[in-house]
Amino acid sequence: MEFGPKMIPLPKGFTVAGVRCGLKNKRNDLGLIVSESPATAAGVFTTNNVRAACVDYSREAVAAGTLRAIVVNSGNANCCNGEQGVRDTARMAELTGQELNIDAKSIAVGSTGVIGHLLDMSKVEKGIKEASTKLGVDARAFMDAILTTDLIEKWAWTTPGNSEVVSPQSLAQRPFTAGEDALMIGFAKGSGMIAPNMATMLGYVITDLDVTGLDISRILKRVADQSFNCVTVDGDTSTNDMLIVMANGASGKVATEEVFEAALKAVCVSLAKQIARDGEGATKLVEIRVTGTSDPKKIARTIGESPLVKTAMFGCDPNWGRILMAAGRAGVPFKTTDVRLVLSAGDEEHVLFEDNAPASFDAKRVSSSLKSDHVLIDLNLGEGETATVYTCDFGYGYVRINAEYHT
Amino acid sequence: MEFGPKMIPLPKGFTVAGVRCGLKNKRNDLGLIVSESPATAAGVFTTNNVRAACVDYSREAVAAGTLRAIVVNSGNANCCNGEQGVRDTARMAELTGQELNIDAKSIAVGSTGVIGHLLDMSKVEKGIKEASTKLGVDARAFMDAILTTDLIEKWAWTTPGNSEVVSPQSLAQRPFTAGEDALMIGFAKGSGMIAPNMATMLGYVITDLDVTGLDISRILKRVADQSFNCVTVDGDTSTNDMLIVMANGASGKVATEEVFEAALKAVCVSLAKQIARDGEGATKLVEIRVTGTSDPKKIARTIGESPLVKTAMFGCDPNWGRILMAAGRAGVPFKTTDVRLVLSAGDEEHVLFEDNAPASFDAKRVSSSLKSDHVLIDLNLGEGETATVYTCDFGYGYVRINAEYHT
Repeated sequence: MEFGPKMIPLPKGFTVAGVRCGLKNKRNDLGLIVSESPATAAGVFTTNNVRAACVDYSREAVAAGTLRAIVVNSGNANCCNGEQGVRDTARMAELTGQELNIDAKSIAVGSTGVIGHLLDMSKVEKGIKEASTKLGVDARAFMDAILTTDLIEKWAWTTPGNSEVVSPQSLAQRPFTAGEDALMIGFAKGSGMIAPNMATMLGYVITDLDVTGLDISRILKRVADQSFNCVTVDGDTSTNDMLIVMANGASGKVATEEVFEAALKAVCVSLAKQIARDGEGATKLVEIRVTGTSDPKKIARTIGESPLVKTAMFGCDPNWGRILMAAGRAGVPFKTTDVRLVLSAGDEEHVLFEDNAPASFDAKRVSSSLKSDHVLIDLNLGEGETATVYTCDFGYGYVRINAEYHT
Repeated sequence: MEFGPKMIPLPKGFTVAGVRCGLKNKRNDLGLIVSESPATAAGVFTTNNVRAACVDYSREAVAAGTLRAIVVNSGNANCCNGEQGVRDTARMAELTGQELNIDAKSIAVGSTGVIGHLLDMSKVEKGIKEASTKLGVDARAFMDAILTTDLIEKWAWTTPGNSEVVSPQSLAQRPFTAGEDALMIGFAKGSGMIAPNMATMLGYVITDLDVTGLDISRILKRVADQSFNCVTVDGDTSTNDMLIVMANGASGKVATEEVFEAALKAVCVSLAKQIARDGEGATKLVEIRVTGTSDPKKIARTIGESPLVKTAMFGCDPNWGRILMAAGRAGVPFKTTDVRLVLSAGDEEHVLFEDNAPASFDAKRVSSSLKSDHVLIDLNLGEGETATVYTCDFGYGYVRINAEYHT
């Protein structure tokens, strides 16, 4: 079967729905993912000390090892709402369980949107009832229901064992042919680690692989560390972040740890890049790769969070001094004599600093190449491991979105 | 004697100069501070792993315990220039020593400006010669020589033992009368922890107090932790930061530790606030006061560096959800049930969150009060110590300055 840009497949035994219940203007705001049988499940959640009620609820649901469904709303994060917020989250699971005739404890709950406003539960109840009657294969309706300030939908799928990942970007280039294989697909939203007052990165990955015998929690944690945890838009960690994977075995195909982890990593890295590229006000994806030292990830993250580096990328300025400054303040020792800094953008590669001195480069040409929508900052600090962080540039759009939004 | 806005006094036994040697356009770019006798000295320096040569040179000069002079240039940070940079810094001290007939090792060197370009030493040499012939009491000429993207000059002085600090802001309100007392004055520059590609926070404090018997290094470190180290504009730590104090005893007044420390703290806190208020693109000073938890300063700093909080302040939006989100991600445990958040701006004080729930407040009125040029975010998280951080808001101006500047 051939998939074009408009078609998004679902793994066997899963249905989804997305409806509009009135929490958000003009767009869907309540979504459901349902597995016909209990799916082995795992999750990773925000480490923010200020957490939405749904994070605690879902963590407990996932801890049981299987899930039947995920219910998620956008337009309201249900965070910092005290005891009433806790009750409302439980009520969302309860209502969903009643409609689907499944145990409320087998349902994860997600919320994303503004902090500190109580959920309008009459709208939520109406939405859950309607979504339950509309379960089907319309993944686009579901995706629309989880977005907030996102400009583009974010999904990625693969047929496990196949190294190719299909995403909106790849499908725009060419169609993709898949057989009756098992399938893994991930949906994500997030336009910052936190979007403008509308919290949250959400990620849901579902597959019909049979993961019997695998410790998918451990695998998910490893994969999250190499994908979503490598994204930074503004360094601000949301109160509602969650990433959940469900595997229901409906394809009958038993996954090895290698196949499952490779597929999960491919899907999550694709989603992570999609989130960075769609960062608030972003004009480009900036990939930061650091090699060497005792903690290359800390250095990569410090560079990726530096407003001075990010504004330079927005301005297409090959300002290597800011990159070295940010690396230097990360608190990880290295010698400037070991530094080699290479910038790749478009089809060009430019050495900016090596041998303890600025390299000679054509600043105008480098600046011109930085107009590309994907820039790679490659900083080599000696022997050792490599860490990659995904971020975006930082321009007027970010200020506009975040300063002109009013609570 | 009465001091109006245009007059800046110097302590006895100090002379200064500022001249234009051509490193910067149209403004002074080379400055000198000279003490007629060896002054007891102490310094604190950037912790950035990528450091300018002048930082290492000055640290060593200060370690000897006394200084005769400080030579500083703007327009070029002389950073990341390898061995040539190290030689040029030493040459600046050597030339100054020759002109003033003092030991080059008794001279601290400061540089601020663009990273990664060699100093034009013929210009620097000319500047040092000229400045040496112009030593006098024109503090304004000196200050002009150390500024980069700063919009306003930053200085603060006090007569030790007197709690009043005189700054450009206070003098604009009323003149100040001082007698023939000992004097302490500080000069600073810095429009970000790092200014746009023109590195650096510089601070120089000079006094004619006699500090015999005092450990001024220890005192300076304590004071820096409560003043300059509480400033964050963009979280980016410069490669050239330095704060040096010189006390030459010319007033004959012997200082107790209490008097010296109180005066130094008053001057440094005033300068720190002046730097935050003049942050790149800033429209207001934002003071963040956090009480309670095991590390209130870490929480205050995380709030102060959050782009979402800073854009909300720019937009005059009382977006308390972002403040709690930032506090929560600082990695310091607290309970949301203990949170009390108060915003003060203009003459008004508004409780935004308490008793584990949003307080009821008039959002329009709070927003209107946020138009003030000084906002205090007061976050109480329970019993314990209080820490204060000084920052500014974050608007289009920051992006303009940092994205449109080209190397």
